[in-house]
Amino acid sequence: MAAKNKSKHFVGVDLGGTKILAGVYNQELELLGKLKLSTKPERGYDEVIDRIGRCVREAVDECDLQISDIEALGIGVPGAVDPEAGRVIFAPNLDWRDKPFHKDLQKNLGLSVSIENDCNACTIGVHELELDGKPQTMMGIFIGTGIGGGIVVDGKIYSGFNRTAGEIGHTVLDLDGPQSKWGPQGTFESLVARPSIFRQIQEAVDAGEKTTITDLENMRSGELRKAIKRGDKLVERIVMEAARCTGIVVGNLNQILNPEVIALGGGIIEALGKTMMPVIEKVAAEHSLPGTSDGVRIVESKLGDHAGIAGAAVLARRMSP
Amino acid sequence: MAAKNKSKHFVGVDLGGTKILAGVYNQELELLGKLKLSTKPERGYDEVIDRIGRCVREAVDECDLQISDIEALGIGVPGAVDPEAGRVIFAPNLDWRDKPFHKDLQKNLGLSVSIENDCNACTIGVHELELDGKPQTMMGIFIGTGIGGGIVVDGKIYSGFNRTAGEIGHTVLDLDGPQSKWGPQGTFESLVARPSIFRQIQEAVDAGEKTTITDLENMRSGELRKAIKRGDKLVERIVMEAARCTGIVVGNLNQILNPEVIALGGGIIEALGKTMMPVIEKVAAEHSLPGTSDGVRIVESKLGDHAGIAGAAVLARRMSP
Repeated sequence: MAAKNKSKHFVGVDLGGTKILAGVYNQELELLGKLKLSTKPERGYDEVIDRIGRCVREAVDECDLQISDIEALGIGVPGAVDPEAGRVIFAPNLDWRDKPFHKDLQKNLGLSVSIENDCNACTIGVHELELDGKPQTMMGIFIGTGIGGGIVVDGKIYSGFNRTAGEIGHTVLDLDGPQSKWGPQGTFESLVARPSIFRQIQEAVDAGEKTTITDLENMRSGELRKAIKRGDKLVERIVMEAARCTGIVVGNLNQILNPEVIALGGGIIEALGKTMMPVIEKVAAEHSLPGTSDGVRIVESKLGDHAGIAGAAVLARRMSP
Repeated sequence: MAAKNKSKHFVGVDLGGTKILAGVYNQELELLGKLKLSTKPERGYDEVIDRIGRCVREAVDECDLQISDIEALGIGVPGAVDPEAGRVIFAPNLDWRDKPFHKDLQKNLGLSVSIENDCNACTIGVHELELDGKPQTMMGIFIGTGIGGGIVVDGKIYSGFNRTAGEIGHTVLDLDGPQSKWGPQGTFESLVARPSIFRQIQEAVDAGEKTTITDLENMRSGELRKAIKRGDKLVERIVMEAARCTGIVVGNLNQILNPEVIALGGGIIEALGKTMMPVIEKVAAEHSLPGTSDGVRIVESKLGDHAGIAGAAVLARRMSP
């Protein structure tokens, strides 16, 4: 895609445990192009810094731009981050502890860099680009391979004492629910994230139920939508139960935080929002005390997998004079 | 109790659905005396205003003081409150909607009045009097006949979009749990509040289990402590399960809000804190992702049933020049 010469450009990066996604944006934060590389955290911190640098350079080149055309870069990191100090405090999926990430990435790319927690970056993307930065209080919930979230208070990201607030996927919703990877039973993530939905379908099939999905080994979120469309009752039932659980969590968050907006995003919502959102809204209302949900908006983010890079680009643009 | 003549005095009131508790405090916020009247909300709004006025006058008289000796009054109300506008937006237990409560109470007593939500008042009491107003982020959880809570962000009460934040008792913890009074199954309150603990003991006795408690009709929280002390295994088991559930909720709140302090109070904690707190702390740690609970303090409030009047007195003192 051709770049406009006189416009400023920004890069937003979503750093995950398995992949790096870099997006190049113009001043209006329209996505001009993107590129994906695998993270390979097992190769160590320096190598990941190098891979982020390569991913960004290739993404910029894909857009027929030079690094010198980029004003600034924002990046979301999967862990506890201190944006002011520019440090990653703790990132379990990358096996990083107390890394001067901001400085190291800036050195690699020669760009101004702004860092955030990945789910906070997603929340900033939704807050700024889909809600015009207006809600004073907001919670973002992102449902995909895992479930994360971010909180906005007084129009700004709220990150808590250890900068780990918003981990809604790791709250318990069902005392007798399935075991999570890290210990507790019945966490929201263990009930509703993509691997849990796929596992429930597999278990039902193993127990003799029928599904129209033929390749159970390589299921994708989009498959679930297509299966429901062609009348697959098993898939529909399991997705509806995931929507019900999500609605209860949204109700819980309304009881605790009572934010102006609760936004849902991520791959599962991108693929199944049309089916799930009406159930989520209804169940959330049923699980909110009278008067508490009046005027509280439950919205579906359309940013999908781009929420992270979009929010990171917002952070980059904020650094620009 | 004799009053010190040259000290300023303040009144803190805890307005509940069944009782009004008024406390008289000196400038150091030491409780000089208190008085309780029943609320009788069925007699209507004006009558309740009148009863609050009588309760305050009697409490002041008990301390050998006059209303003219009182600098200001604070009051916690069970519902959504707009402190700036001085209005009660919605108080379901009193059947009030949009009442100019501040103005009406000020008129009745001729005192400066400050109003807050009752659980927020309790949280302010713990934050100011037990934690020296230091934590920037804090959550208070109060377990008694019901379960309520309050949130502090940036050192101030956070009340949310409809001013109903902090309703932790009405969040779902167990998808298949007991029915709550207002609909959802398995809320924290339906599992752990005093009536739930008593109901579980009754059900176990009905099912043939043995308890050392003789009068099951008129159980009080203190009875539970005494029963455990004399080796009552049934009561111990049920109280321990309540502690476990509370620990999971504390873990959930650490995941979502990650506050500096989570304080537990109310009648159940006052009576059973010694037994319950070690379990709550252990379970909360087990239900917190690595790194998220480092340095987060889980504390037991000693204010007990006085948290509400103490917090209301703090609000009163804040109005004094």
